[in-house]
Amino acid sequence: MKEVNEWLKYQELVERCWRSGWKARCEPIELQVFKALENDPLFARRPGEDVPLEKMRELTFLRLKQLFRYNFLTKEEVMANPWKAVTLNGCLMMYDCALGGKYILNKQEFVINSPDIEAAKFWVGNMGKTATHAVVFAQLYTPDQVCHGLHSFVVALRDPKTLLALPGVLVGDIGKKLGLNGLDNGFALFHNVRIPRENLLNKTGDVTPDGRYVTPFKDPNKRFGESLGALSGGRLSFTRMATINLKLALTIAIRFSATRRQFGPKNTEEIPVLEYQLQQWRLIPYLAAAYALEHFSKSIFMNLFEFQIGQMMKEKSDRQAEMGREIHAIGCSMNRLGDLRNDNDPNCTYEGDNNVLLQQTSNYLLSWLHAKHRDGVRIESPLHTVDFLDDSHKILESRFTARTMEECMDSAVPLAAYKWLVCFLLEESQKRLEQEMASGKEEFEARNNSQVYYCRSLAMAYIEHNCLQRFHELTTDTDTPAGLRPVLSNLCALYGLWSLSNHMATLYQGNYLSGRKPTDLVQMAILTLCSQLKDDAVALVDVLAPTDFILNSPIGNADGQLYKNLWSTVMQGSQVLERPSWWKEFCSDKPVVGSLRPKL
Amino acid sequence: MKEVNEWLKYQELVERCWRSGWKARCEPIELQVFKALENDPLFARRPGEDVPLEKMRELTFLRLKQLFRYNFLTKEEVMANPWKAVTLNGCLMMYDCALGGKYILNKQEFVINSPDIEAAKFWVGNMGKTATHAVVFAQLYTPDQVCHGLHSFVVALRDPKTLLALPGVLVGDIGKKLGLNGLDNGFALFHNVRIPRENLLNKTGDVTPDGRYVTPFKDPNKRFGESLGALSGGRLSFTRMATINLKLALTIAIRFSATRRQFGPKNTEEIPVLEYQLQQWRLIPYLAAAYALEHFSKSIFMNLFEFQIGQMMKEKSDRQAEMGREIHAIGCSMNRLGDLRNDNDPNCTYEGDNNVLLQQTSNYLLSWLHAKHRDGVRIESPLHTVDFLDDSHKILESRFTARTMEECMDSAVPLAAYKWLVCFLLEESQKRLEQEMASGKEEFEARNNSQVYYCRSLAMAYIEHNCLQRFHELTTDTDTPAGLRPVLSNLCALYGLWSLSNHMATLYQGNYLSGRKPTDLVQMAILTLCSQLKDDAVALVDVLAPTDFILNSPIGNADGQLYKNLWSTVMQGSQVLERPSWWKEFCSDKPVVGSLRPKL
Repeated sequence: MKEVNEWLKYQELVERCWRSGWKARCEPIELQVFKALENDPLFARRPGEDVPLEKMRELTFLRLKQLFRYNFLTKEEVMANPWKAVTLNGCLMMYDCALGGKYILNKQEFVINSPDIEAAKFWVGNMGKTATHAVVFAQLYTPDQVCHGLHSFVVALRDPKTLLALPGVLVGDIGKKLGLNGLDNGFALFHNVRIPRENLLNKTGDVTPDGRYVTPFKDPNKRFGESLGALSGGRLSFTRMATINLKLALTIAIRFSATRRQFGPKNTEEIPVLEYQLQQWRLIPYLAAAYALEHFSKSIFMNLFEFQIGQMMKEKSDRQAEMGREIHAIGCSMNRLGDLRNDNDPNCTYEGDNNVLLQQTSNYLLSWLHAKHRDGVRIESPLHTVDFLDDSHKILESRFTARTMEECMDSAVPLAAYKWLVCFLLEESQKRLEQEMASGKEEFEARNNSQVYYCRSLAMAYIEHNCLQRFHELTTDTDTPAGLRPVLSNLCALYGLWSLSNHMATLYQGNYLSGRKPTDLVQMAILTLCSQLKDDAVALVDVLAPTDFILNSPIGNADGQLYKNLWSTVMQGSQVLERPSWWKEFCSDKPVVGSLRPKL
Repeated sequence: MKEVNEWLKYQELVERCWRSGWKARCEPIELQVFKALENDPLFARRPGEDVPLEKMRELTFLRLKQLFRYNFLTKEEVMANPWKAVTLNGCLMMYDCALGGKYILNKQEFVINSPDIEAAKFWVGNMGKTATHAVVFAQLYTPDQVCHGLHSFVVALRDPKTLLALPGVLVGDIGKKLGLNGLDNGFALFHNVRIPRENLLNKTGDVTPDGRYVTPFKDPNKRFGESLGALSGGRLSFTRMATINLKLALTIAIRFSATRRQFGPKNTEEIPVLEYQLQQWRLIPYLAAAYALEHFSKSIFMNLFEFQIGQMMKEKSDRQAEMGREIHAIGCSMNRLGDLRNDNDPNCTYEGDNNVLLQQTSNYLLSWLHAKHRDGVRIESPLHTVDFLDDSHKILESRFTARTMEECMDSAVPLAAYKWLVCFLLEESQKRLEQEMASGKEEFEARNNSQVYYCRSLAMAYIEHNCLQRFHELTTDTDTPAGLRPVLSNLCALYGLWSLSNHMATLYQGNYLSGRKPTDLVQMAILTLCSQLKDDAVALVDVLAPTDFILNSPIGNADGQLYKNLWSTVMQGSQVLERPSWWKEFCSDKPVVGSLRPKL
């Protein structure tokens, strides 16, 4: 009877999530893509396949061609509902990141600006083998030798008929990488390549036939800002990819932990590892984060679409410009979320960039503070992510007031703490910058020396606050089904407290917390929430999970038949039980130990 | 002139490290191995090589055979100086982890105890293809149906002449893995396999010809303890591997950061990224950790050798038994250090085990506390890692007293804080356990619910304290050359403060810290130490680095010719500039978009 009740509870939760749009596979486009790939032999998977690089590239290319034939979404459908395009990309990424990447990267890349090897641009998707044209960002010099800064040009790389490189173009494949080997990343160098004047993409500046430079922007910085806005889409897509990776990893980890048994009280059956508090604490906060990020990435994409429609409409309002800046600030800090990806993901090398990008987020926040101090403007942005900073003075006087663990289990508690944290770090960053400048440092050095512990922490606290804020609003929104609200509220509180626990030292440092009670309460609340969510964990990942074929993990199949699936996958591998082809070399020709030993 | 001075300073530091034993390549065995591998065509590396699985396994095997021919160390040499064996393994690991692993793992593994698929043992090195015998840990039943617990048996797997599996043995290859693919990991299952009685390894227990069980140990737990001691060697080797990975990763990262230029103050040349405070803060603490861990792993191995000699001498003293327990406690917590490995390392899945192993460390510490409270014994262990706990009462009354940043730059400051931290967490863990038991929980559940925030943190603080303690002693040791002491002291202080900064919230929670000053001082001290060590960073990694051939990273070569080396490596790859073999498929047969589109 207990089992039947549990099953009904599971069914009910999955159903509720399904109806309110959380469930993958609830949108027709997902169902359609998953089904098409699973039924198409070109997309079949073989366990333990060891595909050579050349073959892997070819297979990815053939699959890409097939995707064009499927044409899952028409342009009209995308215009009517742009989220569908994001969903489609997500489906392809879940199947294979390299294929998804190749699908998105059709001839939209940056290349080089001068012909020496230090200037060769690496890592350009598709350029290794097949790209025939590239968009090159280069310094634009007019005949009067004046440099007008970066502009973009269309440059032909290879003959589309033969794929051979054109004169003056050195283009090639950078070879095998840690991951994404289905994607051919390339490099390119140009030597006096001549392109027609029309190949300058002239949205932000053009050159007349007689060699004069003309631009619709008076302020070169505003011109640069406009270009930056257009880059946010890529950056937000990357965070979407990180969220998808997190969902896949969690699906495998939680299903595995619910079925894998290890040890137990004396004289009883072994218990699933998910029953251990330690394991709950290591996994379930990531589950909460997956829900927070799923909602965040959906809502930030909606903001981006609004901005892009404004761009297409040639909207030139202040609001449009402000929205571009705000989305840019969010996009620059969001890359940090990539850290959440499972350790197994070898593709964690964007960190360098992320730390540099975070500076743009903190600069954005500092500029608001500056505007308020200097011009007395009210801090208020189109997406309202910074509005609370206008009350900074009052917020900085607030303190942690929860007195019981039950009080702490409300996401309003970490949300209030985050508001204080962002205000505190903003003020500290500003002070630190002023100190550095007062000690005679140039701005470049002053900014560099204000990143660690200040601006960098500020940017991360800002985006974590915003992610929590959006999730908190969803859980209290009257549009959210009442039956779903309790579990979403628990996820939201857990996400908030767990993220906040990385910042406890700063909260003590600035006296928002004092004494040992707050830490005890926060820790107890986290453990209690983990334990309350534990029994729903499998249902909650089933909501986020793609089909088993797409997931492609025998230990993470939906049926929970861990050992059976693992075993059958191993036995399906090639040459599992066979001797190696070099077995004779092993059995005969025994080495004479020390025969190569130098006489010391 | 400045450059000449810098060069002399660099030379001097490297020389000093060389003379005092820090420098890799200073030991003849390292020079000899590196040179032999570099000159042997069988060990040649080709850039961007894409080797199929079968070939990779064969190559690793051929190289292994060649290593036996070289026989770099004789048994006599190892007995005279066991550190040489650790050094040799390290050299092979630096060349290729899979080869190093295969070299160590010659027929010393655990296998299964019952014939169903859940009991199949996976991940056994060498078993996939070539192992002919295995050591199997199995439950021992005597004819009277009494189970005597785990014992080890030698079982034949394959015919040594043909490599075909023997009757009743199902043995195979688990296939391609994320990494270490040169190593053939296998699985095995047994069905009524009969082995002679002599194949029971009878050190801890034996069966007489008439079926009676006899053992030299009266207490079954002590028998188990003896077996555990013997496993510490493997666990410590794993931490050595992590240290080696850290050294390789740091060598590449620091050399790259010293040569890679990016941005700079207006109108000046771009500056090396290592000049940025943010980059220093992200790398240099790991450099300090590499030195701390290098010293730690060397000194813990010396402790292990002492223990092993005792075992060979059949030493049965209390000290010998106590040392076994202490080394086991250290080994169980040391795995945690694997986290330090560079994110690029895909092989980070030991975490699960580590969290479980950490419990043995905290149990060890709790048992000391228990013994003191119950029997009034003095806390004092053979390696002295727990002696300070005897003063726990006094230590818990101490507070952070440094008043200036300069005071904080002494490793005595974080060391004192760590002593307080371990005492605090030990007391808290004990209290937590008592609470759980008092609330009526079984011991199994009480222990599980005391891991997060308590026992787990305790075990980590203990090992970090011990690592810092050993490094601190080295920097103050009169045997350490005076000329090296300043730089080692800086590394030690940085390692201590940086490790401690993960525990600041706990230090505030327990009131060891209060107010904002301590955090400010610690943060300023970390940044100042990073900046002071920055100019020595390249010399300090050169000290730890193997030769360029072994390092095998064009961006991390000792000559700093980043772009030249990267470029030549790319151009040496196969088919870099060639069209793909499937170019015709690309150029012709264009897909009809949407031709497979289902009619919705």
